[in-house]
Amino acid sequence: MTVITTLDRMGRWEPGTPERLQQAALELFATRGYEQTTATEIAQSVGLTERTFFRHFADKREVLFYGQEVFVQAFLDGVDAAPSGATPIEIVASALRSAASFFPDERRAHSRTRQAVIDQNPALQERERHKLASLATTLADALRARDVDEPAATLAAESGTTVFGIAFTQWLRDGEERSLADIATDVLHELLALTGERTTARRARHHADA
Amino acid sequence: MTVITTLDRMGRWEPGTPERLQQAALELFATRGYEQTTATEIAQSVGLTERTFFRHFADKREVLFYGQEVFVQAFLDGVDAAPSGATPIEIVASALRSAASFFPDERRAHSRTRQAVIDQNPALQERERHKLASLATTLADALRARDVDEPAATLAAESGTTVFGIAFTQWLRDGEERSLADIATDVLHELLALTGERTTARRARHHADA
Repeated sequence: MTVITTLDRMGRWEPGTPERLQQAALELFATRGYEQTTATEIAQSVGLTERTFFRHFADKREVLFYGQEVFVQAFLDGVDAAPSGATPIEIVASALRSAASFFPDERRAHSRTRQAVIDQNPALQERERHKLASLATTLADALRARDVDEPAATLAAESGTTVFGIAFTQWLRDGEERSLADIATDVLHELLALTGERTTARRARHHADA
Repeated sequence: MTVITTLDRMGRWEPGTPERLQQAALELFATRGYEQTTATEIAQSVGLTERTFFRHFADKREVLFYGQEVFVQAFLDGVDAAPSGATPIEIVASALRSAASFFPDERRAHSRTRQAVIDQNPALQERERHKLASLATTLADALRARDVDEPAATLAAESGTTVFGIAFTQWLRDGEERSLADIATDVLHELLALTGERTTARRARHHADA
């Protein structure tokens, strides 16, 4: 049975066990290094046992990817929220707005620490890439379920995932103060402006073919 | 010393050692299974030693990714071939044409066998994803070197990589007879058409903001 929240001695609600383990893990990864930290040390740093740790997480790596289903669900909720008749790009824009709300500004410091840990470890980067690749696949499924054909569904889903990735990286930059939603909107508009030069591109292709 | 080509008993030129090992590996992977095939067996099947195998490849996995530098270089040659003043999407279109010429129709059967092996093994799929992620990074660097700003450079590079991935998957489908270049052109146009609906998308956003 998963305990979601507990009362501390002052009677305040505290985060649940997985959240406490996640916070403790991040602190240890950031200060001692990811490689140098064991699951047992993470558990002990918040007064829990190794057994409790492994009841929540398969390994220390998974602590960094806790909450992925909720993250993907935020995108899917945005797909559902787009009105019927919305274009694929409008659906993706709705998914991006919904996903961005999953990362309020209060979470920026936490996300920065997490990213710094991931950036230092190629296996974690690989896992993060895998997470975004799965997201793109899931988004493409959701677009097809809304009668978007191929390759439009995959193109729109991949574009949405790319926009999210670029916006998220920017959101984490030192000194960046705009919300993730605002940055994602800007990056999506950059993509539309970029590909909006298609008349020129077609002319160039015509020349190349001639 | 790498022997590039050899003469067989009939006096014909034969492919070099890495190509022979690659061909032998593909045949064994496809018939026996990737997991069940060792580097020694690959080498022995073409009358070579394990030592020769490891002079060319770090492990059996790398046999499947042999030639990646040449593949990436084909994209970069296409970037260089785009005229000055080309838009980011025109540069990407040029890169796609150049990369497609790396996969002539004679290579389709070989590429299908390779893909079937990769599709059956999650670690190989991960390596393939990594290869495309590196390609996108390299392409973005090349675009920035041509004075394309961020995030346009990354967006264009990621879009090009996505288009290539979708086109390549289609090229390998049973019954598909169009060239990779033609498919890539079609997929790129689908992307431009999709994002060309931006007027509608902007109107929808205006509604949402209101």
